[in-house]
Amino acid sequence: MKSIVTSFLLSRVLAVALCTLLLVCTGAHAQTDPLLPSWNDGPAKQAIVEFVQATTTQGSAKFVPPEARIATFDQDGTLWVEHPMYSQVMYCLERVSAVVKAKPELAKVEPFKTVLSGNREAMAKLSMKDLEKILAATLTGMSVDDFNAEVKKWLAEAKDPRWKRPYTDLTYQPMQEVLTYLRANGYKTYIVTGGGQDFVRVYSEQVYGIPPEQVVGTAGGTKYGYDKSGKPFLTKEPKLLLNDDKAGKPEGIHLMIGHRPYAAFGNSTGDKQMLEYTKAGEGARLAMLVLHDDATREYAYGPAQGLPNTKVGTFTQALYDEAKKQGWVVISMKNDWKRIFAFDE
Amino acid sequence: MKSIVTSFLLSRVLAVALCTLLLVCTGAHAQTDPLLPSWNDGPAKQAIVEFVQATTTQGSAKFVPPEARIATFDQDGTLWVEHPMYSQVMYCLERVSAVVKAKPELAKVEPFKTVLSGNREAMAKLSMKDLEKILAATLTGMSVDDFNAEVKKWLAEAKDPRWKRPYTDLTYQPMQEVLTYLRANGYKTYIVTGGGQDFVRVYSEQVYGIPPEQVVGTAGGTKYGYDKSGKPFLTKEPKLLLNDDKAGKPEGIHLMIGHRPYAAFGNSTGDKQMLEYTKAGEGARLAMLVLHDDATREYAYGPAQGLPNTKVGTFTQALYDEAKKQGWVVISMKNDWKRIFAFDE
Repeated sequence: MKSIVTSFLLSRVLAVALCTLLLVCTGAHAQTDPLLPSWNDGPAKQAIVEFVQATTTQGSAKFVPPEARIATFDQDGTLWVEHPMYSQVMYCLERVSAVVKAKPELAKVEPFKTVLSGNREAMAKLSMKDLEKILAATLTGMSVDDFNAEVKKWLAEAKDPRWKRPYTDLTYQPMQEVLTYLRANGYKTYIVTGGGQDFVRVYSEQVYGIPPEQVVGTAGGTKYGYDKSGKPFLTKEPKLLLNDDKAGKPEGIHLMIGHRPYAAFGNSTGDKQMLEYTKAGEGARLAMLVLHDDATREYAYGPAQGLPNTKVGTFTQALYDEAKKQGWVVISMKNDWKRIFAFDE
Repeated sequence: MKSIVTSFLLSRVLAVALCTLLLVCTGAHAQTDPLLPSWNDGPAKQAIVEFVQATTTQGSAKFVPPEARIATFDQDGTLWVEHPMYSQVMYCLERVSAVVKAKPELAKVEPFKTVLSGNREAMAKLSMKDLEKILAATLTGMSVDDFNAEVKKWLAEAKDPRWKRPYTDLTYQPMQEVLTYLRANGYKTYIVTGGGQDFVRVYSEQVYGIPPEQVVGTAGGTKYGYDKSGKPFLTKEPKLLLNDDKAGKPEGIHLMIGHRPYAAFGNSTGDKQMLEYTKAGEGARLAMLVLHDDATREYAYGPAQGLPNTKVGTFTQALYDEAKKQGWVVISMKNDWKRIFAFDE
């Protein structure tokens, strides 16, 4: 009996030794495959790593319990390309022909007439009111299931004109690494977007590893009803419940999440209130803004730091100055990111 | 060298044997401490266990991938006592004196005058419109943080008049076991309540192990603003965003979760649409209704099955008949539950 016990104990010593060896090897591997590999060393990367270490190390004065670890990310311009036009707007414009096919009387009515003409110059001049009419016609009035199927089909076929790739390929690899890094450290990652909640939820799990219930966006009401066979379904209504932009972002976070994030990422004046709200909490809070200053690898627009102003996601000089004042970290795409997309060399 | 290897291999054989022994012991232990110990054997318990096994066993035709495992629970009358009055209504009535202290002019105005009189008979006669005025005065107009602090304070002090215990002690032990059982099998558990979302979120984590972001309830808007020092905060507004009852439940589920539940639990006509919506999905879906038929250990009310009708959560005979027709499982508190509360013998 004794020999078996001795042999077992001996083997435990050996097993521990093997485990230690394994851990050492894993550690060595980690050094050759560092955290956030698409980030250059610098204040932005350092801010992320320090924040995660401070809030997840047991015994740290800034330790955050796992159930409170919430991180929120704007989408357009923060997680993927928004220039020259938001992907969802592209979807709506490209859906107009299908809408007109179902309701031919719209073909002669503005703004549908202009969209059908394909005249990009005229389309660029459409007013916000015109755009709202297009959004209402293409995003509401159908069942939730039909809408999801349409978006899925469009995403599989549509391509960005510059990169000739599906829009879902155009996510920023460095930000994907931040999402993964935060989740590996117990953070729940949320998208908090001015874009349509239902639209983003169609691909969020596949593209970002973020499930639909962790997408907060501009949201309309739905109406519960029954089809001819008595089967219940939800219809998308043209009734705005949440305009998830500017002050609507903290309001949306309260509605949908119910507690304050510890980290928030944005890229425009639409994200200012979310960052303020995040930083106003106690303890360690991280607020970051992506600055599009890389005309070669992506786009350069601001108008912060003298970059050109555009129709999408405005990063004003006032926002830049506020960031510096409040300790929000500005991410320079040009300097902080080794590569932009997963498909980059 | 060979002897060490032999000894290591030998020890692995031993370790496997020990593990097997341990598993057998755990198995034996599970038999003396079975699943859902507060449930009597019967069709209700069987339906829950069969549903979980069918949807979580790899290779089962009804297997549900972990990210789709969503279960929704009504709260009042499903997870805790709702009779003779919803706890949140008690909170509102008891908050009236504090509200009047801040705004003394309300003391002479109905319905506040009646509430302050303490005349329970007169209070019972208040109209729905009166009640709405009380809810608006006690649930809105303050900051989110102040509201949370008030609710927390009230919950720590208030007691149910029959059991002389905090309301949060009055959760149903069998349902707590269902929550735990589902979560242990990869289900995300949600509360979907007609009660106030912000109210329930204050205690959901502590009482049910359900984090605030997994509470869907009747929700009002908030308004983002700044205090004198420039610090941002949210004020609760008297603006209804979601009436999370009846058809509002599937609508709320779509808004807040974005996919259809696989299991739903309720106890009244307010839950009918949630159950319908859940069952209308493909594959295995579980819909259950708690019937309050235990006048001794809790309360008996319906009016299904000839039980008396009351002001709270109505379980009509039509709902009972619909349940039988649709394959929704009715839980008899009297017959299906060994004990009602954790503090029961």
